[in-house]
Amino acid sequence: MNKITNHLPTAELQALDAAHHMHPFTSDGELAKKGVRVITGAKGVWLKDSEGNKIIDAMAGLWCVNIGYGRHELAQAAARQIEELSYYNTFFMTTHVPAIALAAKLAELAPGDLNHVFFASSGSEANDTNIRLVRRYWDVKGQPEKRVIIARKNGYHGSTMGGGSLGGMAPIHATGGIIDGIVHIGQPHWWAEGGDMTPEEFGLLRARELEEKILELGVDKVAAFIGEPVQGAGGVIIPPSTYWPEIQRICDKYGILLIVDEVITGFGRTGNWFGSQTYNIKPHIMTIAKGLSSGYQPIGGSIVCDEIAHVVGNAGDDFNHGYTYSGHPVAAAVALENLRILEEENIIGHVRDVAHPYLAERWHALKDHPMVGETNLVGLMGSLVLTPNKETRAKFAGKQGTVGFRVRERCFKNNLIMRHVYDRMIISPPLVITPEEIDVLIARAKLSLDEAYKSLVEEGLFK
Amino acid sequence: MNKITNHLPTAELQALDAAHHMHPFTSDGELAKKGVRVITGAKGVWLKDSEGNKIIDAMAGLWCVNIGYGRHELAQAAARQIEELSYYNTFFMTTHVPAIALAAKLAELAPGDLNHVFFASSGSEANDTNIRLVRRYWDVKGQPEKRVIIARKNGYHGSTMGGGSLGGMAPIHATGGIIDGIVHIGQPHWWAEGGDMTPEEFGLLRARELEEKILELGVDKVAAFIGEPVQGAGGVIIPPSTYWPEIQRICDKYGILLIVDEVITGFGRTGNWFGSQTYNIKPHIMTIAKGLSSGYQPIGGSIVCDEIAHVVGNAGDDFNHGYTYSGHPVAAAVALENLRILEEENIIGHVRDVAHPYLAERWHALKDHPMVGETNLVGLMGSLVLTPNKETRAKFAGKQGTVGFRVRERCFKNNLIMRHVYDRMIISPPLVITPEEIDVLIARAKLSLDEAYKSLVEEGLFK
Repeated sequence: MNKITNHLPTAELQALDAAHHMHPFTSDGELAKKGVRVITGAKGVWLKDSEGNKIIDAMAGLWCVNIGYGRHELAQAAARQIEELSYYNTFFMTTHVPAIALAAKLAELAPGDLNHVFFASSGSEANDTNIRLVRRYWDVKGQPEKRVIIARKNGYHGSTMGGGSLGGMAPIHATGGIIDGIVHIGQPHWWAEGGDMTPEEFGLLRARELEEKILELGVDKVAAFIGEPVQGAGGVIIPPSTYWPEIQRICDKYGILLIVDEVITGFGRTGNWFGSQTYNIKPHIMTIAKGLSSGYQPIGGSIVCDEIAHVVGNAGDDFNHGYTYSGHPVAAAVALENLRILEEENIIGHVRDVAHPYLAERWHALKDHPMVGETNLVGLMGSLVLTPNKETRAKFAGKQGTVGFRVRERCFKNNLIMRHVYDRMIISPPLVITPEEIDVLIARAKLSLDEAYKSLVEEGLFK
Repeated sequence: MNKITNHLPTAELQALDAAHHMHPFTSDGELAKKGVRVITGAKGVWLKDSEGNKIIDAMAGLWCVNIGYGRHELAQAAARQIEELSYYNTFFMTTHVPAIALAAKLAELAPGDLNHVFFASSGSEANDTNIRLVRRYWDVKGQPEKRVIIARKNGYHGSTMGGGSLGGMAPIHATGGIIDGIVHIGQPHWWAEGGDMTPEEFGLLRARELEEKILELGVDKVAAFIGEPVQGAGGVIIPPSTYWPEIQRICDKYGILLIVDEVITGFGRTGNWFGSQTYNIKPHIMTIAKGLSSGYQPIGGSIVCDEIAHVVGNAGDDFNHGYTYSGHPVAAAVALENLRILEEENIIGHVRDVAHPYLAERWHALKDHPMVGETNLVGLMGSLVLTPNKETRAKFAGKQGTVGFRVRERCFKNNLIMRHVYDRMIISPPLVITPEEIDVLIARAKLSLDEAYKSLVEEGLFK
């Protein structure tokens, strides 16, 4: 099989997939029995599968296809760059124009003095870079014992050994282990953990766990804190308004470096270029990926402030870290074209002025559904919580996530890609989604909720 | 700067690079003072820089551009795939044809029952996957305490926290730390460490360190051994002929999983599809990247044997690991087209029958140079050792690598990309290199050696 052959029968593609393709975050044995869905094409917010279904993608792939699928300009940018310079590295005192241009553009877009870019091919790799960067920084500053990074339970920072350890997901930690020098504090997840507190009280409480942890470990041991402006894979958990100002205060007070993981929130997702702007956070390092290329190419990186770049770059010795594909010219050229489109077509303005307000009205209306306890939306990332009791914020009996999975299965059948995280349903559609497409999204979401609800009631699982 | 602008003056590009671009394995402060070289185009084995120099690339980028630069077919494959399906993920029970086709093709090419592919975007990521895979495997088999991975000093397995820890490079370990559960044994580096032994005796000795380490740790604690068939970044260290058979015997005897890192040696580099074939190694997992796409796209992966894929895929629970860009459709489509070219143009046959024999004769002739102690070549990866005394295999006085750096600087000036690892000069040219181009490579290498030698003699540093 030397060619892409979309025309093969689904069953044949499924059999080949089952025989040779190991899937991420999957039980391949189960999947082989069930039969995988084969996506064959995509345009805008729409996917097509091998059975001819036309599916609306309310997840933008994996939170990444910000400008929508299938933009011709990006195809041309990739082809042009391959013809011109298909690869070169940036080790050994060389560089190339795509890496320079993209680094300069990112420095222009990023807030504050985040002026320096270290490239990687994914958010995972970039977070591994960040671990090395902050430890190296303190080492050069003569404080090598400042190496602990404080992160959060139910945070997500990738799937390398480093990235997975920064993340606070127990199932990932259980798969191969976690690395040392990383500790986790509680998440600002009011719905699940806020008890009788107001969200604002709870946000402060959770932020102050950072201060407690710094004092417990000793400030001379702590290198940095890392967090997502809005937890993505954790379930689109929008923090209470009190949370980030208090985190900022604590980082400032103790001189702890602040790494903000913008892999999901970057490049327009929250209605600004970066989530740090939406939440008024002043990071020393931002992790980027996904929306950087709208997922058209594997590329990520760290945008680094003047102070860290200066210290690490003038340490005398090399910064002994980097990837073969750091600043890959083709990936960089495509990313640059993606940023041009985001900017020139004012897509972030569209999010702020058109798509968010329209979606917000319809998304929040789903709260009237008997099974929906809460709806959340910032920019174009949203969640809704499934609950058997809106007043008490109760969980369903039995294994957590069973109801969420049932709703997702209905969405799948109804040609809507909506994801569940346990019993939260989450969305993150392409930023170019139109009001008409939002209507389709909401109609299919509602239908899927209704069907799942009806089946639960019929089975006596919901009263 | 929204566009790639190769036409800018070099000084302007250098200033932008210095202001915004952090380089891998570099001291950015030093580089900014010196001024970076800007590569602007490439075709075949030739690079072009912003000053109009035409440079022969004897490193194939970073050991990756196996089919040579600038192949039109790969530009078209990328553009076609972006138009059709610019991104989709392979999580959540979906797949797409490029990932299926590439996985099936790799299963066909890989030896033995290496039939299953877990995709990543780099060799680093893939080696992090391997850490999780082998630990998960033993966990599912009811032996969770089998989690130590034995690796080698001066091995290279990437630059994530996991990959860098598997590698045995002290400067990387010193930059952010290493993760637990990885131990290092000695390398089969006869020239530097073999003393009075024959290479064959030394190869056996170093292989048996694996057995000693297994017995020291207890076989119930050891998950796997990882090694490169030929150490690449360590300095193109070709192991003595006794080494790999003994490693294989030990892994077989103790039931230790064998991970072979084929990131450099894969896809024709050693004159076979995989270095494992050249050295008759039977791995359970192969790490791949680089030559997989000839570096045109960031893509890597793990090719996994039936047993591990079956155990991990049928554990009941998900394998909780994976990357947003695992099996990226554009990267996969480009890789597939690269493999088609490698196969249909019989490029590996060219290595075996034309390029290797021709290069071997000329490369080994460099041994007559007064400063060259040893020359090594397998397929199209080679090294030569700089020494002040060929008989005693002595090192130069002073800081290791100073002479190697001096030769590299001469190569740079003479428009030859040849890398140094301390005082070893290494090459790994595109596999499509012709005899005429090999003549250019050798002539420039010889000139650079002569110039460096002359300067050393003049300075009284070489007698």
